[in-house]
Amino acid sequence: MIIILRRKTEQSDIDMLRQYLENKGVEYEIVSTIEANFIKIKTFAHLLDLKHINQFSSVLKAVRLSTSAPLVSSEKGKKRKVIELGGVKIGGDEFTVIAGPCSLEDEVLFLNLVKYLKSAGVRIIRAGAYKPRTSPYSFQGLGEKGLDILQKASTELGVLIVTEIMDVRDMDLVYRSSDIIQVGMRNMRNYSLLKEAGKQDKPVLLKRASDATVDEWLLAAEYILNEGNMNVILCERGVTNSLSCKSVILDLNGALEVRNRSILPVIIDPSHAGADRSLVPALARASAAADLDGIMVEVHTSPKTALSDGFQAILPEDFKNLLSDIGKIRNALKG
Amino acid sequence: MIIILRRKTEQSDIDMLRQYLENKGVEYEIVSTIEANFIKIKTFAHLLDLKHINQFSSVLKAVRLSTSAPLVSSEKGKKRKVIELGGVKIGGDEFTVIAGPCSLEDEVLFLNLVKYLKSAGVRIIRAGAYKPRTSPYSFQGLGEKGLDILQKASTELGVLIVTEIMDVRDMDLVYRSSDIIQVGMRNMRNYSLLKEAGKQDKPVLLKRASDATVDEWLLAAEYILNEGNMNVILCERGVTNSLSCKSVILDLNGALEVRNRSILPVIIDPSHAGADRSLVPALARASAAADLDGIMVEVHTSPKTALSDGFQAILPEDFKNLLSDIGKIRNALKG
Amino acid sequence: MIIILRRKTEQSDIDMLRQYLENKGVEYEIVSTIEANFIKIKTFAHLLDLKHINQFSSVLKAVRLSTSAPLVSSEKGKKRKVIELGGVKIGGDEFTVIAGPCSLEDEVLFLNLVKYLKSAGVRIIRAGAYKPRTSPYSFQGLGEKGLDILQKASTELGVLIVTEIMDVRDMDLVYRSSDIIQVGMRNMRNYSLLKEAGKQDKPVLLKRASDATVDEWLLAAEYILNEGNMNVILCERGVTNSLSCKSVILDLNGALEVRNRSILPVIIDPSHAGADRSLVPALARASAAADLDGIMVEVHTSPKTALSDGFQAILPEDFKNLLSDIGKIRNALKG
Amino acid sequence: MIIILRRKTEQSDIDMLRQYLENKGVEYEIVSTIEANFIKIKTFAHLLDLKHINQFSSVLKAVRLSTSAPLVSSEKGKKRKVIELGGVKIGGDEFTVIAGPCSLEDEVLFLNLVKYLKSAGVRIIRAGAYKPRTSPYSFQGLGEKGLDILQKASTELGVLIVTEIMDVRDMDLVYRSSDIIQVGMRNMRNYSLLKEAGKQDKPVLLKRASDATVDEWLLAAEYILNEGNMNVILCERGVTNSLSCKSVILDLNGALEVRNRSILPVIIDPSHAGADRSLVPALARASAAADLDGIMVEVHTSPKTALSDGFQAILPEDFKNLLSDIGKIRNALKG
Repeated sequence: MIIILRRKTEQSDIDMLRQYLENKGVEYEIVSTIEANFIKIKTFAHLLDLKHINQFSSVLKAVRLSTSAPLVSSEKGKKRKVIELGGVKIGGDEFTVIAGPCSLEDEVLFLNLVKYLKSAGVRIIRAGAYKPRTSPYSFQGLGEKGLDILQKASTELGVLIVTEIMDVRDMDLVYRSSDIIQVGMRNMRNYSLLKEAGKQDKPVLLKRASDATVDEWLLAAEYILNEGNMNVILCERGVTNSLSCKSVILDLNGALEVRNRSILPVIIDPSHAGADRSLVPALARASAAADLDGIMVEVHTSPKTALSDGFQAILPEDFKNLLSDIGKIRNALKG
Repeated sequence: MIIILRRKTEQSDIDMLRQYLENKGVEYEIVSTIEANFIKIKTFAHLLDLKHINQFSSVLKAVRLSTSAPLVSSEKGKKRKVIELGGVKIGGDEFTVIAGPCSLEDEVLFLNLVKYLKSAGVRIIRAGAYKPRTSPYSFQGLGEKGLDILQKASTELGVLIVTEIMDVRDMDLVYRSSDIIQVGMRNMRNYSLLKEAGKQDKPVLLKRASDATVDEWLLAAEYILNEGNMNVILCERGVTNSLSCKSVILDLNGALEVRNRSILPVIIDPSHAGADRSLVPALARASAAADLDGIMVEVHTSPKTALSDGFQAILPEDFKNLLSDIGKIRNALKG
Repeated sequence: MIIILRRKTEQSDIDMLRQYLENKGVEYEIVSTIEANFIKIKTFAHLLDLKHINQFSSVLKAVRLSTSAPLVSSEKGKKRKVIELGGVKIGGDEFTVIAGPCSLEDEVLFLNLVKYLKSAGVRIIRAGAYKPRTSPYSFQGLGEKGLDILQKASTELGVLIVTEIMDVRDMDLVYRSSDIIQVGMRNMRNYSLLKEAGKQDKPVLLKRASDATVDEWLLAAEYILNEGNMNVILCERGVTNSLSCKSVILDLNGALEVRNRSILPVIIDPSHAGADRSLVPALARASAAADLDGIMVEVHTSPKTALSDGFQAILPEDFKNLLSDIGKIRNALKG
Repeated sequence: MIIILRRKTEQSDIDMLRQYLENKGVEYEIVSTIEANFIKIKTFAHLLDLKHINQFSSVLKAVRLSTSAPLVSSEKGKKRKVIELGGVKIGGDEFTVIAGPCSLEDEVLFLNLVKYLKSAGVRIIRAGAYKPRTSPYSFQGLGEKGLDILQKASTELGVLIVTEIMDVRDMDLVYRSSDIIQVGMRNMRNYSLLKEAGKQDKPVLLKRASDATVDEWLLAAEYILNEGNMNVILCERGVTNSLSCKSVILDLNGALEVRNRSILPVIIDPSHAGADRSLVPALARASAAADLDGIMVEVHTSPKTALSDGFQAILPEDFKNLLSDIGKIRNALKG
């Protein structure tokens, strides 16, 4: 960070700023030239709040030159993170496809779908036991009963499970029933939950809030890494916008930027980003062609009777075609 | 809700839809005319998900004619809610001014500020003990120690307290130290927290998420009312937008719409909506002239050394001028 | 502007940047310190494109310290612009109320409405002869016939006229029939039209495009001033957003910012910003309480049969009440 | 369109609505059932304004069942448009790659680049002679001199030319120097220009305004088709949003939706949508994998000295690699 000082400034105003910097524990240096005076922050610039510094009367403009999220940052040539669990790699050269229904509903139907997906090559299954819903009158998920079904699928069918946690008090339950803990987009700013997720020794899949900037998203991930859990997967699932008010749009730009600026794997959720079954395959293929790290897709055997988000789930056979197309794209680009 | 059916539809497709409606427990009626067939939902339409229904192959278009949030709704001539606590009324003909620092920092400074504000006529004090911050490296609030200071202010100075809850596990602590429980904008979609707030017998101040539609905001309030707590104050604090990306803008349109569509009092937070001290008085005056139910303003004796959001806090003397201006506007419009 | 250079840079890369600066005709100075090298732009920084400079490989970060729109800017203590025409002042201590129907429809009805508005104290009448409509099938305005009606109102009733120009080829016609030439929000980026408006000797009312940043809006005004016409009135009329997708919301923050950063009068169009008759009075009162320079309101004797935007026009008697309320607010705040 | 009427309505209110419908020349039918009365619009529903109708006091809710842009619409199984010119097809099974510099600068450099692009397989060249720039102080294009260079490229090198028109008075000049007339995003709502473009017998490339909804974009195209020119290419070039305020993001959802709802070819401009050279190839590959009809890419031999938008132009050799990748993706998905 460089803080450019105003030309005509009282020494007392500069001292107030210096006091602030010293309280924060950063190292800095004052550089005086004929044309301008400025302060160069040498260490711990991420502890400083740009907005705060810009309000000091001695400050003309403060400019951040490095990241405010040092742990997730790819600065200084840090190696990209590859997450390994149960023989599966996420990140690196892999393109990971996670699939499953939006929410758990019926045990038999779910286990049959998991078998189908596994036979198609899927190793990680998604399904929600706790469902955050905009209306209190909508189906809220099976809760603990759903977690039991997930555990059964894991034990009997040998798949890895990702499921969402909504309440910090459920952490132990969710931990026991999953291999990857999902923090949904509505809780991306639930910092208590992020901190708790940061204390677990299982990977966390962190969805981007639909109105979060890339900086905010990275800082949410930083909350988790800062507690010691370095295994975070970032998931873009569509952003709000002024154009298609009924729904979000996929932000490929943001996904590419976050992949570039962080060391973390970045995957796409084309189901929520499409918010319409007919758009899902095209958005998924686009993600594969754009060199991201994977997708998470909602698949349902009977979307029309699904208790949540059926309109965006694709049928098992369409999913198989999509998997095939993605394979072709990945192979073609490697060749 | 009216569900317009497609002309050429198999009976089996219509039956699937009827099965769905029956499972939901709504009463409906099928109306056939020469030109169109449609289904009229007669009761419990708020239990139905418009998106879901529109995906049935037999449906041409489903249209919601009544609200999806019946408890907060002002439909059918329900009386506006006036919340009374400690001799203070919120809503109705009152214009409530809540004031205080963004976060609790120093006990002595805080108590002095509270005395000043009380002498100026303020009855409800705001101050955060738990602070949701975008960066894990920013000041996170004094926590329990802050709650103790709040309780002291309440007991010794006889003011009412509103403070934010961030973690569902802190409910008992926050309950004991406050008269109004605030759910911040980052937790507007933290449904576990909303439900817990709905079980308390103290009013809840619910901030709008900066990207929430009016419908979503009303449904978040509905979560609270649905648990039995009818005393909710809605607070607009600025919305994200594509124009002034650094910050939010005040959404007066949304505040007016939500006040019209619900029975709940609606107040404005001009400090967060302005995100710059110099805009706060104008936005606060605008809120008073637009006939909303109040404002919540950040005041700080030394904004430049504030540990959070100092750039948007106004000085005590500027606050006094603002109070005076607001009084003039309210009187002029009554006269 | 200050251009901070990278530490390890080839001299040839710096020379390429210097060459660029010299081609632009700006004066600059290279400042070397132990900690950083930077280039300080001394004159004509507004000619430089920040994005462009940031792409030079020698540049770490370029920071703009002054405005990119020097003619409209309030920097350096320039006096605020007060526009005088026909005995009316716009800007300064005045609060100007412009009123009239959205579009010209019927001559008799229009002249009667103008008489009514004039008797209520309105000196400037708005009405569109050319109407930009989203659909080619919507009413497109009376065109030249409408301009004739405007001229009649001006001559016979002694009011000032503001009307919109849509096509650069109509400049002479519009010039003859109006006292203030309006450039609508859809043409804020029609630079040919802005330049042509800049060549006229009548004031220009420039509406903000609904997705324009404050910087862009100021630069659109700069196009007009740069051609010699210094009499520009800025008009905020609502911005697109992700929340109320059917319509815009009033951006009071932006209006206040643009008023602060420029010397130009800034008015509000509460009719388009409200996009609903029921919101117009509250937004208009809010504008008066926020110390802006005026409003432009749509009034119609029979909104339901209006050929355009009837849903946002208020009735003459409601307008009279609004005028009265605005007077009260302005007086109260002065007193 | 179906207009659902309120239960208790005066006959005179219904008559007012009927009068309105009759004035518009639409055919309609009043359907009465025990449960509801509604009006079914049978023909010319696109002439009706939904907002307008919803304001009649007799109307509970009006619902549009068919398109408001009948000429561009893909309703009723109309065949997709394939545009043929100079032996090149746009739309259908083709994936068209248009390339060239942002603006014309130097004749020799331009002609060399065109030769290079042609040898790589490009048949359509883009380059701007008239440049719409946010600042009046930015390079405004070579104007007529630029058009001469374009004509030379066309004649001597046998390529097709697409170039932007900004001013309706330049139509003849631009017509003579180009094969496809581009209407840029800033002029998408310049209806005079759209109408003039609709009178030409050359294809029009219509860029989406960065804040236009899909409906608005389709209606802008409808303006052109309505004048008789059926050869319109739609081009998505990024949309404004609240997340990455410095720039736009690619809206693949919108591009896919507009391709589905219209008969027109839809291409992507990954250069403006990426607004950063490093994002362009990924976004271009994504477009190819998503089955859109083509891309338009900015290529420059020396992006750093480009007079406009150099930061988003890719180098000729990177363009060649991109072309190769796109070929691989298209072949893989066909196979």
